[in-house]
Amino acid sequence: MQDNNLVKFGNEALEEFKALVMNDKFSKVFFVVDENTHENCLIPLVRELPELPENEILEVEAGEGSKSTEVLVQLWHAMSELNADRNSLIVNVGGGMVSDLGGFLAGTYMRGVSFVNFPTTVLAQVDASVGGKTGINLDHIKNRVGLFQNPLRTFVINDFLETLPQDERRSGFAEMLKHGLIADKEYWNELKEFDIDERIPDSLMIQKSVEIKSSIVNQDFKEQGIRKALNFGHTVGHALETLALDKGHKLLHGEAIALGMICETHLSIRYAGLKVDEANEIIEVLKKKYSNVEPTGSPEEWVELMKMDKKNVNGEYRFSLIKKLGEAVINVEVKEEDILESLNLILPL
Amino acid sequence: MQDNNLVKFGNEALEEFKALVMNDKFSKVFFVVDENTHENCLIPLVRELPELPENEILEVEAGEGSKSTEVLVQLWHAMSELNADRNSLIVNVGGGMVSDLGGFLAGTYMRGVSFVNFPTTVLAQVDASVGGKTGINLDHIKNRVGLFQNPLRTFVINDFLETLPQDERRSGFAEMLKHGLIADKEYWNELKEFDIDERIPDSLMIQKSVEIKSSIVNQDFKEQGIRKALNFGHTVGHALETLALDKGHKLLHGEAIALGMICETHLSIRYAGLKVDEANEIIEVLKKKYSNVEPTGSPEEWVELMKMDKKNVNGEYRFSLIKKLGEAVINVEVKEEDILESLNLILPL
Repeated sequence: MQDNNLVKFGNEALEEFKALVMNDKFSKVFFVVDENTHENCLIPLVRELPELPENEILEVEAGEGSKSTEVLVQLWHAMSELNADRNSLIVNVGGGMVSDLGGFLAGTYMRGVSFVNFPTTVLAQVDASVGGKTGINLDHIKNRVGLFQNPLRTFVINDFLETLPQDERRSGFAEMLKHGLIADKEYWNELKEFDIDERIPDSLMIQKSVEIKSSIVNQDFKEQGIRKALNFGHTVGHALETLALDKGHKLLHGEAIALGMICETHLSIRYAGLKVDEANEIIEVLKKKYSNVEPTGSPEEWVELMKMDKKNVNGEYRFSLIKKLGEAVINVEVKEEDILESLNLILPL
Repeated sequence: MQDNNLVKFGNEALEEFKALVMNDKFSKVFFVVDENTHENCLIPLVRELPELPENEILEVEAGEGSKSTEVLVQLWHAMSELNADRNSLIVNVGGGMVSDLGGFLAGTYMRGVSFVNFPTTVLAQVDASVGGKTGINLDHIKNRVGLFQNPLRTFVINDFLETLPQDERRSGFAEMLKHGLIADKEYWNELKEFDIDERIPDSLMIQKSVEIKSSIVNQDFKEQGIRKALNFGHTVGHALETLALDKGHKLLHGEAIALGMICETHLSIRYAGLKVDEANEIIEVLKKKYSNVEPTGSPEEWVELMKMDKKNVNGEYRFSLIKKLGEAVINVEVKEEDILESLNLILPL
């Protein structure tokens, strides 16, 4: 289903978007943005275009809170009132929130209209850009509602990362580290030396992550098997993120995943045969790079939230772990007491 | 995508459902019903089953009003609170409202769980049972939001029709007449002699309609072309239905479609070369069978609502018409003045 060359980079991306958007098979273009990407990305993007077909801008509030049923319903109504038809094109310009929400909107409005994504954060470029997951949160349960469906194209523009706040950049970097950990030791070795606080990842690094993710997703679009490897760090990470969202505590997705990977690397020793030395090295790198991240809540609260994880089967915890640097295992049943123990690793001192 | 043998009838249907529901690949079963199908269909159905796995009943209010964003959001929350996981099975027991709503719920909860349908009305058995359309209404705009996706299986139980009110039965019959008109002259000739007010259509008749619809849908699942033939009568019909819903005037789907077919048969003379004699015969049969159906509103109001039709392109009206008994044409651009003229045919005397 997913194909690597659905993702286009840099100038090639711009040229292809111009050709696509001027194609008269689309009756109208709907841009989905938040207030930041409206200013920092959409305006510069439109400046690059010689002309634009009939279009509308649907702006939602920045932040995960917009991935809600309320905002979704507002957007459905807005599309309808603005006379969007089946030949409309939705163009999502933003981070994962925008493409998750805008993609779900596209997939369900009139039983599906075409959409493309311009991911504007490191996280969205390396993660949300590939794999066709869209969705919204239910209360604070992440992505409880959604679809698997690919955009027509994803356009990755490196320049958009320049206006990205440093903590957002570092958040996305956690998913890049994950790609190394589950699939490519060499890439991990390159990334662990990279100072994300000082530098913006270049196109080649982003491409490497896109390639890793694409190759996994291509084998298993609907996440029945190997795709679950991409969930490494996410069982714990999602629980941290859900509680933070619930309590109004700021914790970015990648920050939560980084903490999750610390715990799940530790669990990998017992449950996946990861060598203690390797585990310790990984944990040390993650702790150093994400030293100032603090979760909210307690291990007991987090483990309670893990009961909602979509990978669970009949209420039993199932993890995606790593057996060595660059190799993942999936569907690992883990005992609650061991999860609780691993969670101590990320408690603030 | 759709396959005729996805639809099972009678005893075979019951046996297959038993086997399916006892399969331990499903963690939990969620029945979606309204208060009528709960009592008249689900309870007798459950009596036929030796035992039932863990299950919950999600009951919504009968009527088109439940195909709303509010009810959808409630069901998403209910599933989540009842710990539905990815291996849950949704079983829709009801008319088109239940399968449209429950199917959309299944398609979007956790990015999709499995579902099966027990259509319990003539309309649902011959129409909603095949073709994988699911969805909800936005305010009173029909099916503005939804998905194309097939149930695992559709189980058609003729007995369910026995408790169906007469007007509901006659409503479903309109879609059967449509199947004859667009695809099978012989079937039309059989149906025009059938007294739906006195008799319940038998399994063979229902099967015939299922076959006609399946053969069309199999050629064009996503309704890019020939599938639009099934929309005969629906451009006008949907407008009548939307206005009736909006004004709280009772008008069943099939009743609206029957009136719609009267107007669109008339339009077929000028726009599709339908012979005047044939047109008059069709109009006479429809007028006789649906003589007591009265729409609400005026031609001007109806035509305004047709501007929202999903088949339109760039704001131009596109109709599916018939060029002779048993043969349809699609994508026919029709002038507004001629639409208005045809609508006079259904004005109450």
